[in-house]
Amino acid sequence: MTSSSIQNRRQFLKTAALSGVIAGSYSLPVIAGIDKFELTDSLPDSMKTPGQDFTNYGQPSLHEQRVIRWISANPAAPGNGVSWTPLHDLQGTITPNGLHYERHHNGVPEIDPQTHTLLIDGLVEHPLSFNIANLLRYPMKSRTCFIECGGNSNSGWRSNPIQSQAGYAHGLVSNAEWTGIPLKLLLNEAGIKPSAKWAIAEGADGASLNVSIPIEKLLDDALLALYQNGERLRPENGYPIRLVLPGWEGILNVKWLRQLRLSEHPAMTRDETSQYTDLLPDGKARQFSFINDAKSLITSPSLGMQLPDNPGIYQISGLAWSGRGKISRVEISADGGETWVDAELEGPILDKAFTRFHLAWQWQGQYAILQSRATDETGYVQPTRDVLLANRGKHGFFHYNAIVSWEITEEGDINHVYGF
Amino acid sequence: MTSSSIQNRRQFLKTAALSGVIAGSYSLPVIAGIDKFELTDSLPDSMKTPGQDFTNYGQPSLHEQRVIRWISANPAAPGNGVSWTPLHDLQGTITPNGLHYERHHNGVPEIDPQTHTLLIDGLVEHPLSFNIANLLRYPMKSRTCFIECGGNSNSGWRSNPIQSQAGYAHGLVSNAEWTGIPLKLLLNEAGIKPSAKWAIAEGADGASLNVSIPIEKLLDDALLALYQNGERLRPENGYPIRLVLPGWEGILNVKWLRQLRLSEHPAMTRDETSQYTDLLPDGKARQFSFINDAKSLITSPSLGMQLPDNPGIYQISGLAWSGRGKISRVEISADGGETWVDAELEGPILDKAFTRFHLAWQWQGQYAILQSRATDETGYVQPTRDVLLANRGKHGFFHYNAIVSWEITEEGDINHVYGF
Repeated sequence: MTSSSIQNRRQFLKTAALSGVIAGSYSLPVIAGIDKFELTDSLPDSMKTPGQDFTNYGQPSLHEQRVIRWISANPAAPGNGVSWTPLHDLQGTITPNGLHYERHHNGVPEIDPQTHTLLIDGLVEHPLSFNIANLLRYPMKSRTCFIECGGNSNSGWRSNPIQSQAGYAHGLVSNAEWTGIPLKLLLNEAGIKPSAKWAIAEGADGASLNVSIPIEKLLDDALLALYQNGERLRPENGYPIRLVLPGWEGILNVKWLRQLRLSEHPAMTRDETSQYTDLLPDGKARQFSFINDAKSLITSPSLGMQLPDNPGIYQISGLAWSGRGKISRVEISADGGETWVDAELEGPILDKAFTRFHLAWQWQGQYAILQSRATDETGYVQPTRDVLLANRGKHGFFHYNAIVSWEITEEGDINHVYGF
Repeated sequence: MTSSSIQNRRQFLKTAALSGVIAGSYSLPVIAGIDKFELTDSLPDSMKTPGQDFTNYGQPSLHEQRVIRWISANPAAPGNGVSWTPLHDLQGTITPNGLHYERHHNGVPEIDPQTHTLLIDGLVEHPLSFNIANLLRYPMKSRTCFIECGGNSNSGWRSNPIQSQAGYAHGLVSNAEWTGIPLKLLLNEAGIKPSAKWAIAEGADGASLNVSIPIEKLLDDALLALYQNGERLRPENGYPIRLVLPGWEGILNVKWLRQLRLSEHPAMTRDETSQYTDLLPDGKARQFSFINDAKSLITSPSLGMQLPDNPGIYQISGLAWSGRGKISRVEISADGGETWVDAELEGPILDKAFTRFHLAWQWQGQYAILQSRATDETGYVQPTRDVLLANRGKHGFFHYNAIVSWEITEEGDINHVYGF
């Protein structure tokens, strides 16, 4: 942050109550319609020639090639890292399959659906093995839900706010319609022994990724997903089968699933001990936190965009989600949290899924700090960064869900700052 | 149809009441779980090596390359034709963007979003011209809806039932989350003169496609769509802007929109006179029919699939949709329409959008004819083919929405037949 913007922030603190003017959500931009035009005797070139041919599988426009998953991988360990969903370039709530975030521990395995099998064993009456053709005959159910990596937004733990675009700091979360078999059907067919309290889920990737999951969640809303937004799963999202646990952190949604072994105790695997566990200020560790807490993010305006030098009405738009249920409220502040106004939530508001919010904002060229704050149907309210750090310490790495603050300078530049 | 299957159909008529046994929708397949397995000391190859690297924009699995839009284009007029959504290979309700059906009259134009403009003129107080950057500043709204070509399913008018897979006879319909500007905002900004009753919408393609649309629909739920399933529109679906008229036939959802000219009367353009108009038995023409009537289709089991030679429980699954509102009911018959059972509808049931239905079916190796029949919230019931032909004649080409019948032979083969 430059000293000039610090000056602005000091001044801003004194005038905050005045600077958070927010208009109704369907106000129109002042400048958008241009009241002049030419009746084009000259037709555009696109009307003078036949267009391109049909395609068997369509691709985005060449003019949108900047809209990509941004890859942050470990050069020393190929296939270990993430790619981020460009939330700042998207609208609505569905993440198209080509842009669903990736988190791999050892790359995307090549799996032949003809030979892949899923084994359900351990504390069951009848160990069962399924191939994909058999699974496709089971009753299926669809549900739209987000999946969020436990490490999403973890740059928030740094001392200084990272200057990345919204999706490239918070885009390890995506939202899709998943279709598959309610897992309880298969578990009940196998027969769960009374001593079974956990299942150890393992993927068929080079990392042999495995994690422990309480049996209650598997019997609740867990899906054995075969389809993603209508088509079969993408390789990077678990083709041919993925465990989907709505609202539970990404790593538990095991991709390339090959085994569910029921057990009395969790396995204390690498990925649930050294990773995805939070060391707290008192030296204890927070483990098996599972649920993605409520969170929200203004995707527009956001860092990397620029407000034109003319004041006017801008549409604030963003996403909110909670692993505990439906989003019940999103509030917006333009003065760094002094005053708040309810945003409009777009329906249908679905359980454990992205909810898009909107609010029109009258920007008059003033310094501002835009924030969004989500509340879910359980009453959980997204915390400020100060509160999150007070509870979880300064040395966290996972499960960061604090309010995100975008600084708007008088010049219309947008920076990431930490809230007060 | 072979004489053997005719014999079967005659016998079937006598035993119809017995052959339509339908079980509860969450019954399990009898054969799907195999109660034997090997504890694989030998891990699959995919676990022995690092996997593939991250990708900026993902693609379907190489094992799913058969899942394509099937192209039926006019060899004498490149870019004139359709490509079909493979509904028989999909699940859930969202059509992924790569598989959204195409209908072009003269190919897919290449349009530069930097120079494209939308003109609103004619009977308005203030003619307005917008570029894409300006449009992106307007308030946006998302809605999931289907778009269906007026020519979808038109092989149903042939004397003999076409033997094509479900999507390749009925897949000129797709369902997506569209995000854009409620058109009424722009029309109201332009100021609608009292004499304006219609708008002539024109696309910037080589066909100069233009159609007349009643102003009431544009002021109701019309969207000026910029996004499709979260990302910017695909070129073949109108990039950079498309008119979306939920529930109204595809051609009215003008792609590559460049002009809306408000007028007192419809323009009687080529595409609303020689095309998309139905000649009725009495010699009169049914024109400006606009709304896609309620329709349904069993996508599984369907032609191109085969029931294995062992009887058992099969999950009937399919799609229903109506341009008049929500689907309120889908019934299934396994006996060619003698008896009907309600299917389970999957929620959320959205207005003018795909609704997925399910029903478990106990197939005991008998001859059967599977049908689905949709009812929408206005009470409209999908007609039999006989009723449709009685009302609309035998020489139709557009707006076919009759019940589809799949014949299941005793061998488990599946054929398309016309219902009784």
